[in-house]
Amino acid sequence: MKKVNVGIFGGTGYTGGELCRLLLNHPEVQEILPTSREDLDFNRYYQALSGTGINFIRPADLEKKVQEGRIDIAFFSLLSGEAMKLAPMVLDAGVKIIDLGADFRFKDPRFYEKIYGKKHECPELCRETVYGITELNRKDIRKSRLVANPGCYVITAMLGLAPILDKGLISLDHIPVFGIHGMTGAGNKPERATIYTEVEGNILPYQQTHRHSWELENEIKEFSGQEAKVNFTPSYGPFSRGTIVWCNPLVKEYSKIISRDELLRLYSKYYKNEFFIRVNQFPRTKSESQKEYDIYPQIKNVRGTNFCDIGLDYDQERGIAKIITVTDNLVKGAAGSAIQNMNVMFGFDEKDGLKYYGI
Amino acid sequence: MKKVNVGIFGGTGYTGGELCRLLLNHPEVQEILPTSREDLDFNRYYQALSGTGINFIRPADLEKKVQEGRIDIAFFSLLSGEAMKLAPMVLDAGVKIIDLGADFRFKDPRFYEKIYGKKHECPELCRETVYGITELNRKDIRKSRLVANPGCYVITAMLGLAPILDKGLISLDHIPVFGIHGMTGAGNKPERATIYTEVEGNILPYQQTHRHSWELENEIKEFSGQEAKVNFTPSYGPFSRGTIVWCNPLVKEYSKIISRDELLRLYSKYYKNEFFIRVNQFPRTKSESQKEYDIYPQIKNVRGTNFCDIGLDYDQERGIAKIITVTDNLVKGAAGSAIQNMNVMFGFDEKDGLKYYGI
Amino acid sequence: MKKVNVGIFGGTGYTGGELCRLLLNHPEVQEILPTSREDLDFNRYYQALSGTGINFIRPADLEKKVQEGRIDIAFFSLLSGEAMKLAPMVLDAGVKIIDLGADFRFKDPRFYEKIYGKKHECPELCRETVYGITELNRKDIRKSRLVANPGCYVITAMLGLAPILDKGLISLDHIPVFGIHGMTGAGNKPERATIYTEVEGNILPYQQTHRHSWELENEIKEFSGQEAKVNFTPSYGPFSRGTIVWCNPLVKEYSKIISRDELLRLYSKYYKNEFFIRVNQFPRTKSESQKEYDIYPQIKNVRGTNFCDIGLDYDQERGIAKIITVTDNLVKGAAGSAIQNMNVMFGFDEKDGLKYYGI
Amino acid sequence: MKKVNVGIFGGTGYTGGELCRLLLNHPEVQEILPTSREDLDFNRYYQALSGTGINFIRPADLEKKVQEGRIDIAFFSLLSGEAMKLAPMVLDAGVKIIDLGADFRFKDPRFYEKIYGKKHECPELCRETVYGITELNRKDIRKSRLVANPGCYVITAMLGLAPILDKGLISLDHIPVFGIHGMTGAGNKPERATIYTEVEGNILPYQQTHRHSWELENEIKEFSGQEAKVNFTPSYGPFSRGTIVWCNPLVKEYSKIISRDELLRLYSKYYKNEFFIRVNQFPRTKSESQKEYDIYPQIKNVRGTNFCDIGLDYDQERGIAKIITVTDNLVKGAAGSAIQNMNVMFGFDEKDGLKYYGI
Repeated sequence: MKKVNVGIFGGTGYTGGELCRLLLNHPEVQEILPTSREDLDFNRYYQALSGTGINFIRPADLEKKVQEGRIDIAFFSLLSGEAMKLAPMVLDAGVKIIDLGADFRFKDPRFYEKIYGKKHECPELCRETVYGITELNRKDIRKSRLVANPGCYVITAMLGLAPILDKGLISLDHIPVFGIHGMTGAGNKPERATIYTEVEGNILPYQQTHRHSWELENEIKEFSGQEAKVNFTPSYGPFSRGTIVWCNPLVKEYSKIISRDELLRLYSKYYKNEFFIRVNQFPRTKSESQKEYDIYPQIKNVRGTNFCDIGLDYDQERGIAKIITVTDNLVKGAAGSAIQNMNVMFGFDEKDGLKYYGI
Repeated sequence: MKKVNVGIFGGTGYTGGELCRLLLNHPEVQEILPTSREDLDFNRYYQALSGTGINFIRPADLEKKVQEGRIDIAFFSLLSGEAMKLAPMVLDAGVKIIDLGADFRFKDPRFYEKIYGKKHECPELCRETVYGITELNRKDIRKSRLVANPGCYVITAMLGLAPILDKGLISLDHIPVFGIHGMTGAGNKPERATIYTEVEGNILPYQQTHRHSWELENEIKEFSGQEAKVNFTPSYGPFSRGTIVWCNPLVKEYSKIISRDELLRLYSKYYKNEFFIRVNQFPRTKSESQKEYDIYPQIKNVRGTNFCDIGLDYDQERGIAKIITVTDNLVKGAAGSAIQNMNVMFGFDEKDGLKYYGI
Repeated sequence: MKKVNVGIFGGTGYTGGELCRLLLNHPEVQEILPTSREDLDFNRYYQALSGTGINFIRPADLEKKVQEGRIDIAFFSLLSGEAMKLAPMVLDAGVKIIDLGADFRFKDPRFYEKIYGKKHECPELCRETVYGITELNRKDIRKSRLVANPGCYVITAMLGLAPILDKGLISLDHIPVFGIHGMTGAGNKPERATIYTEVEGNILPYQQTHRHSWELENEIKEFSGQEAKVNFTPSYGPFSRGTIVWCNPLVKEYSKIISRDELLRLYSKYYKNEFFIRVNQFPRTKSESQKEYDIYPQIKNVRGTNFCDIGLDYDQERGIAKIITVTDNLVKGAAGSAIQNMNVMFGFDEKDGLKYYGI
Repeated sequence: MKKVNVGIFGGTGYTGGELCRLLLNHPEVQEILPTSREDLDFNRYYQALSGTGINFIRPADLEKKVQEGRIDIAFFSLLSGEAMKLAPMVLDAGVKIIDLGADFRFKDPRFYEKIYGKKHECPELCRETVYGITELNRKDIRKSRLVANPGCYVITAMLGLAPILDKGLISLDHIPVFGIHGMTGAGNKPERATIYTEVEGNILPYQQTHRHSWELENEIKEFSGQEAKVNFTPSYGPFSRGTIVWCNPLVKEYSKIISRDELLRLYSKYYKNEFFIRVNQFPRTKSESQKEYDIYPQIKNVRGTNFCDIGLDYDQERGIAKIITVTDNLVKGAAGSAIQNMNVMFGFDEKDGLKYYGI
């Protein structure tokens, strides 16, 4: 099979850097071309990747390569509103797109317009876009030329909710969702709030009435066909990488017969063929009054990897499922997931370039 | 006024150490006597407090001092079940008690028995005990000889909920409460899960069907007279000190007219005379789509202090109040709060020994 | 005694904030006036100090107060070159100065000019300035109207070296000095290198041929009368506060009879009357092959405090003294030390405003 | 080429786990068999590696496999003194050994006996052992059946010193060496000093008269043929992984003509064919008075990888070379280096299983 040449529009952010890191070890990738608007030395900018031969390219030069047919796939890691400007040209040149931003996340462009406060420039593309959670939309991704990758919270929450949504076990009236992710999620642009001294030992709540509620409600609806109200609260935590999301839905009256073990069975079965989803099935060995951390998933086990670890518990007395899901926000929550989609789109082994284990 | 002599039953844990640190600068305290069962050198054990003249005392020796009338107040920082054994003797000797454990937190001892799985040995003392949230129970604390201090989660959550509960604005059917606290909350006993390398960059969920749900539901009932169902999820975060609690209740139908500003007014008024409660009233200056960390409270601002900072937001579209409360789990969440109660019980200035600002 | 009014020229950096935090609890201080060039809300800028009544003042307004005789002491926390411009006016108004910058650290202004690359504007003031290490220069500080406070590395290193220099035990030909301090030392101006994600789990060496070598060599000469060559290597570590300095001098031939115990005696005697210097005298209890962290000083024990903890060891076979000294870079290394000097200059209790213990 | 079966004696420490992580992606490795004395579930013990099919094996069972000829290479990650007991049997069975402990690090067993305080049980093996710094001893490693891998400090320091030692540029009378490594270096056995709360924001000096001085002096002598005196100071830093070592030797009189640029040239030439050694050659772009972190190497760029990054500076006025070297203490400092040696011993591509870039 011919190796692919990859363009990365927006190569200077954490996601762009992560795409480079992962694609470097991808057996089917030939050239990696990340863009930079400024005149930056790739080796100095990304010292961890120095000496690998990758260099920055100007956006205009990458666009030219796209038009000349020398690029097979373009990743977009751009500011809101930029992807929709670039996408039509790239698709017209026959190049597939995986967009890591928000421009194409809503099938109905009015949602985008409401949440992001600007007019969508290519609403027709929204409708054909496939939402890029590989495990849930693999078939559509395979046929797609334009994939919109979710935000790290939404992919993490949806992978946690999918099996229980699929069974129709929970009340959708009011789903508490709580998420913390690492500071790479805030980008690498310096601002006073994100310097080391302001973050150490701190938790930074932000936008408690956050736009990601909309995206998650929208995806729950796409997945289950039903309206949901999400009570979502995002924060940054004092670490660089990782996303942890708690979904604590009430189970419906008739399903109070469930237990932690039944949830474990349900989830294990649902994801039994998924390499990147690991359901933590360790039995509770101590009495509940003691701490037993390892029956819940931990960020450190997925750091740097494309794994999504899921842990489950059940509050029998109150009828509340406790679903905890962890990913690396830059890998499964962004670049890794995007590469997994690329693998699907091109018929590569889905694990290509992604066989890393947590350090 | 005569200075007081303080005994600390259980002087080798983080709470015991923190009591020593704070009492050292307390103008009305003469002697500080923390117990240790082992033969430990206080100066070596607590190097930060070395040279201050404090030494460990054996429990039996402190008991003797209690019986000889040489102690004015005893703090209990003991394992579950030990306080109830010791309390009757101490009270009989005319010495006041502030218990930082769980033994006396429930007026109805059957709750204790259900949650902690052991029989309560002095149920009659449960009924006279005052629950030690100074701001909510100051009058009763003043007259009490036995105060049960709450756990750090419950005090932090209750201070966040009190004003809105008081107004009857929220639905009690299902209150999502999410809490993260620092690793000092896990104690200083070494175990594999809490060594540095296992915690760095990690979040450690634990006991997702946690006993603190009961304590919080119980206190909501004590405070509001109504039954509540709490959906509580505790975790440790990668930092030493601090508790952050999100309470995200649904407001009742008729109160959808509220807004963030109205919540700010309500809370500011409710706590207007409280030195240690600071309601973050900074206006939102950016559009909601941008991050604006400083309208929410942060652990770093209360670290090492007795302050409880509260921030508020309101999700207008979904009718959800977002109440975020931070404390230092060892100060306002434990030792500081206990000293604040001591100040009330002895008629000292409530701020004595507690005028620290976040570093 | 009349309380003093304090002006802080340069109130928006970490040192300015720390001066405010400490002066708030100073019993002899009435008014605290930190300057800001921009129109900032003190309560929002320093949320940890919100509600204390302190507000920012414009530099011109503080200068006016100085000239009107309404200020008793001015702290300078300014960029290099600014203090020398402001000092003459302030001194002429009869106001004492403690400068936390480098402008007056060298008695010989040619040193300043060589190292900082700019002409000194008031060389005559350099000569009258007293170098502000309280423990070493207390007598001169008492009589001084202009004190130049050292940088955090130099004060920490000098307190570690003074006793052994005083005894003339070490070779000055080549003194290895190694220092790490917290990220507050890099200031609060955002830059890419200091955002959380770049610092976590990292050590940041900088300026390995650093100007602080000159300052330290200069002070060794002032103290001992002899020329020294310092091999100094500064870095930032992944923490907010604290300075740790290793001085590992070779002892002279004739003094090979020394041992760790003798060093402990020497240091304990030298600092026996110093409240803020604690010499770690814990005996080695394990064989040397095991780790025994508590015979060395640790940053956590001095964090937030004005203490300087010193630990000592001796490599018998190689004749090397291992002197480890820790301080909080913002307290003993800056604001605390400055306040200690203020206390000396005004005849206050030297501990006023500084009785904090490590949290 | 036939794939190899790998036994790991000592599979429950951080090094054992890291060997598993890296060998999992090694194209020439078939089976991975780490030992555990206790009955542990590999998937629960190493959740990051759960589902990979690796399981613990009892030491006796692995010994049996060795004797049956079913193992090709054995890694030893054992306590001091255990490797020398096991080695003869393993070698006799025709199985190659890479020992990650100290038992075989000294050609002269009297050194071992002096430093570790116990008699060496197979002194003759010491003499045939090859010291496992691949870049310096590649030829001998290729022919060896017993490789002793260095400690993380010594390998990092030696890679930093080799080019300048090779040129004979520095004085060996007194070489200051300073090292900090991550808490994984302290192992995963819980003790009070290494729990999260004791390490956060802290630096932990230990054994300031450390046995690694001997190992480093010994290697300098092996390499250069000359006696050296090393002034070495080890500490732990508040991070999990990484070693950073500063070697600051004085250059000899006649070589004062050198400069930072000449050092860069020397090092780049020396390591020009080494994939895993990267010499940071970025030019100083600011004046020296400003901070410029990226001309020095940083732990984050090598975390999780087998790279050793070297940065250089030169204090012209004092004639001091500043050589800073960083590695990941578990990879290049232990497991990665061991696998690199395995690759050399078996004729595999030296990069096999080690092509990771810093995250």
